Amino acid sequence: MWINPHPDFNPEKPLFVCILANTETAKIPNISAAGKSPQLTDYTPAADAELVETGNAISINEPAMTPSGAPTPAVLTRASMLLTGIPCLFINSGLRVRPMVPTIDINAMPGGDIRKGHAVVDALDIYKKSQALGKKLGKLSDFVIIGESVPGGTTTALGVMNALGYDSKVSSSFPDNPLDLKHRVVSEGMKSARISFGSLKNEPLRAVECLGDPMMAATAGLVDGLGTKTVLAGGTQMVSVLAVIKHLGLKRDVSIATTRYVADDASANFREMTEMLGYQAFAADPGFGSSKREGLRMYERGDVKEGVGAGGAMFAAAMMGFSQKEFREKVEEVCDSIFGAAIS
Amino acid sequence: MWINPHPDFNPEKPLFVCILANTETAKIPNISAAGKSPQLTDYTPAADAELVETGNAISINEPAMTPSGAPTPAVLTRASMLLTGIPCLFINSGLRVRPMVPTIDINAMPGGDIRKGHAVVDALDIYKKSQALGKKLGKLSDFVIIGESVPGGTTTALGVMNALGYDSKVSSSFPDNPLDLKHRVVSEGMKSARISFGSLKNEPLRAVECLGDPMMAATAGLVDGLGTKTVLAGGTQMVSVLAVIKHLGLKRDVSIATTRYVADDASANFREMTEMLGYQAFAADPGFGSSKREGLRMYERGDVKEGVGAGGAMFAAAMMGFSQKEFREKVEEVCDSIFGAAIS
Repeated sequence: MWINPHPDFNPEKPLFVCILANTETAKIPNISAAGKSPQLTDYTPAADAELVETGNAISINEPAMTPSGAPTPAVLTRASMLLTGIPCLFINSGLRVRPMVPTIDINAMPGGDIRKGHAVVDALDIYKKSQALGKKLGKLSDFVIIGESVPGGTTTALGVMNALGYDSKVSSSFPDNPLDLKHRVVSEGMKSARISFGSLKNEPLRAVECLGDPMMAATAGLVDGLGTKTVLAGGTQMVSVLAVIKHLGLKRDVSIATTRYVADDASANFREMTEMLGYQAFAADPGFGSSKREGLRMYERGDVKEGVGAGGAMFAAAMMGFSQKEFREKVEEVCDSIFGAAIS
Repeated sequence: MWINPHPDFNPEKPLFVCILANTETAKIPNISAAGKSPQLTDYTPAADAELVETGNAISINEPAMTPSGAPTPAVLTRASMLLTGIPCLFINSGLRVRPMVPTIDINAMPGGDIRKGHAVVDALDIYKKSQALGKKLGKLSDFVIIGESVPGGTTTALGVMNALGYDSKVSSSFPDNPLDLKHRVVSEGMKSARISFGSLKNEPLRAVECLGDPMMAATAGLVDGLGTKTVLAGGTQMVSVLAVIKHLGLKRDVSIATTRYVADDASANFREMTEMLGYQAFAADPGFGSSKREGLRMYERGDVKEGVGAGGAMFAAAMMGFSQKEFREKVEEVCDSIFGAAIS
């Protein structure tokens, strides 16, 4: 099934928001595939935004793909925006590299390495600025899908989930999920922050400050401010935001949409976690197994899986009546124009 | 009359956008009152945005007023936003100082001193980025009011008007308009740019590059992208944008709203210019003559006059059914909370 369950929303003024942030955590060797090298992950969110907006990852001089050659999930997001015509706004919630396309700056500092135990500067301030922005956007849109681009973000997600008391297994942009490494990183961070498993369950924003990343505070604040129907577009990173929202006691009409690759990732536990937290979850299958492009077929083998709100972007396309085939063909078209039709 | 003519719009999703930029032109001594000193005009747009958003001009450590003691027009804009609940988005179209509130960054460079004859870097790029943003916002809002905060902006307005062939008399934030100085500055800029009166009438974006400021390119691009009903909120600065729009051959449903202080400024020719250009113009009278605050009464004597979309903000309040008295009292309330009730 293309989207499971099928979305039955019919919004008048849908909006897609993509929240961008960097965390030094991404520079720990072998932790993230979201960039050609750990150092280059600084450029990934900016390049993703540029690719979604213009079809060209202006800030990087090379093809926007993982080291193994799978294209950035930004191509899925761009395909959906082109198909649906839904406007997409980008939020800079702590970037080292600013995108060369219009981006809403909420003045957040980039995230630090969570091994030090203080990863986010003033999560409440980020939350409040994003909440204020959400209040405005909530007057313009009746349905908001929120994606993210944060290299290293599944590790910060694991950190926050553990600090809140969840034995979450997070997904990965690598086919082989480096879960041992992630657990070691989180353990080190907990030690530095002098916290333990579940010890911050009543202080979710403090959990973000110790072991999270700035995107989490921005997304939770945005959901709060919007007050409208909202879909978080992402995998285990957005599950951690749902946990933050739940532990803040926020009552909002929020659900989550991700790709089948995350939902079915046996090394993670997306479905169990969303069920345990009590939020509706959607899984989108782009059917890349039958794609003509090798790079997209790599998604079927576990590369990339999700990011830049790709799952939510598919959700949006389905909501607007586009079929899996129409979506996949549009993604191929986007890839052809970026990477060339001949190259995989 | 509170607004002349009375606005008869009834939009569903109104939006207020304030476009912020700096120009080195503001640092020419005695040219702008929009800051305590010429150097401090770098901070004025950021402080204006902060004041509209939060009631506190975070980036400056002193009361947000002209050297003579009249409050920034941002207090009028804030009063309107509080009364009407219209969401307000800020655009950084070339700032030296970034506001500490959420702001959409379109990656424009701050403007240079127009005496050098090259004041704006790549006006077409600014135009296109703003146009792309406008296309998105036009899907969310059916009515957009666009204000600006650009210290020194009446001089750049004079420059562009002259380059386009209009013998425009621009207004001033000083009670005594330093028109001679502005004309000398524009003459020098024309000499440096090797252009003459009217010589760029077929190249409006080139006129902006030589003698304008980045706000002009951003505003024109935004109007283009929005495609919706639009009101430019400002005095002679926005007249220059209307001229740019007209000379670009852009067909859009655009009008202009300013304060009575600009519309009735005998040293300027707002009404003649808007009539000659062929756009509908609205003038708003806050009735500050009967204000309890000396600083607001100074507007009646020619201080400040307009800025931060104050005229358009009043237009918005009137459109939403608020009376002149309700508006003035809200402005006084805003002033009380910023400057203290006892102080003028």
